[in-house]
Amino acid sequence: MKVITSINEIQSEICKQRSMSKTIGFVPTMGFLHEGHLTLIKEAREENDIVVLSIFVNPLQFGPNEDYATYPRDFERDRALAESEKVDYLFYPSVEEMYPQSSSVTVAVHRRTNVLCGKSRPGHFDGVATVITKLFNLVMPTRAYFGKKDAQQVAIIEGLITDLNIPVKIVPVDIVREKDGLAKSSRNVHLTSDDRKQAIVLYKSLQAAKKAIEDGERNPDHIVNVINDLISPAPNAKVDYVNILTYPHLEPLEKLDGRFIIALAVRFSNIRLIDNMIFEGTRED
Amino acid sequence: MKVITSINEIQSEICKQRSMSKTIGFVPTMGFLHEGHLTLIKEAREENDIVVLSIFVNPLQFGPNEDYATYPRDFERDRALAESEKVDYLFYPSVEEMYPQSSSVTVAVHRRTNVLCGKSRPGHFDGVATVITKLFNLVMPTRAYFGKKDAQQVAIIEGLITDLNIPVKIVPVDIVREKDGLAKSSRNVHLTSDDRKQAIVLYKSLQAAKKAIEDGERNPDHIVNVINDLISPAPNAKVDYVNILTYPHLEPLEKLDGRFIIALAVRFSNIRLIDNMIFEGTRED
Repeated sequence: MKVITSINEIQSEICKQRSMSKTIGFVPTMGFLHEGHLTLIKEAREENDIVVLSIFVNPLQFGPNEDYATYPRDFERDRALAESEKVDYLFYPSVEEMYPQSSSVTVAVHRRTNVLCGKSRPGHFDGVATVITKLFNLVMPTRAYFGKKDAQQVAIIEGLITDLNIPVKIVPVDIVREKDGLAKSSRNVHLTSDDRKQAIVLYKSLQAAKKAIEDGERNPDHIVNVINDLISPAPNAKVDYVNILTYPHLEPLEKLDGRFIIALAVRFSNIRLIDNMIFEGTRED
Repeated sequence: MKVITSINEIQSEICKQRSMSKTIGFVPTMGFLHEGHLTLIKEAREENDIVVLSIFVNPLQFGPNEDYATYPRDFERDRALAESEKVDYLFYPSVEEMYPQSSSVTVAVHRRTNVLCGKSRPGHFDGVATVITKLFNLVMPTRAYFGKKDAQQVAIIEGLITDLNIPVKIVPVDIVREKDGLAKSSRNVHLTSDDRKQAIVLYKSLQAAKKAIEDGERNPDHIVNVINDLISPAPNAKVDYVNILTYPHLEPLEKLDGRFIIALAVRFSNIRLIDNMIFEGTRED
């Protein structure tokens, strides 16, 4: 595995690989790798000649009062994990390398943003779309792998590649969970043990929603109530949102039909956890 | 020469050429080709294995009161000219092909825009940057050719490829002029014969400015006066702007030094003409 920190070097390596017609699988991350990321890497490893993993905590996607400074980082651990997963190139640029001057050109996302996490994080998805566009231009991947946990991110990146005609295939990968159902997240490490126990309520409530839908419930408001009723007994949980929207367009719907997402965000102390399930009709998709 | 109107087809042709390691020269235009464009094509032809010309009048870069509807178009003439210049692929997509839905993701330009033409055309360069990003993703050129006549456009596209790490080399090409000095433009065809005669004042004033600079003038305001004094006797001319700015950053400067541009826009009836000269110190660059 080659660790690359410079833009020139990643470009010349990629150029070399592309000229040999190698397929390139790309897993962009902010590091502090967990099993969710490793699943993405494994899938990229299976489907491509070359695997590129990027680790870059992107300042552009954090708001002024968000956790950019405290976002967990552990490069040596990440490097060992990447190596054991047989990553070919670990791209690990500095902020100065990615943004040598403050950006005069950015990517602006006008739809699918003003709901779910985007609602409380203005500018967040512009930052995501900008860094992903930069990384795609540098890594020129055949396929790029994203976790379905960030379902809104996947929806927005699918819009990005369609609208800007970026020649990349997006591969959304299923959510990886702890044994008790909590979705894996780099932020889980910050949970107190009490919060950690209560946090299983996210997945439990999604499972209850799924059961209700399978049993014939078609009213989104009733499903939202089912979820809220299950979360509210957890004393440390503060619901940020519980939303049901069409997927991937992320628009409100009156009756559960077609493709839709149930998405929720719940705070425990200062830690904000998200989870979701995507459905196609009455079936989990 | 192959005329291609579909995104899928241009992608598959480009893919084929790239897999054979061909270099691709790209000339993006809005059509109604004149010698300026042909010079770009000739330069692309000399320097690359494959030449792609695109013709697309991009609605996104026209304001609501601008000349999108009346922008001159003549595809059959353009096609014959492209063929005679040995273009390999003429990409000629419809608006529906390029924007199948209204764009949910666009490119936003935050600098170099609020001066010169950008000042009176809000959103214009966002539209330019968005369509150029799309075209670059579709054509994946090795080199892209732009006329220096649209000097602000060149500056902004250079910012675009730097900031978004687009792997393309930008080749700016000198302004092509009529015998009497008027810069070639698709819009010249709309000038009345009277306006056409008076329009030579643009280049004449730039030449006078150049002479004054060569003679030692270092005060930008004095140069602006030289230009205005030469334009004002033309009865149909209405000056939109005469500006001297650093290049390519397009910032004001107090003393003529380093790299800078003298740029002007003048209206004749409803036709807005632009011209410019770029200097490095006392020399035209």
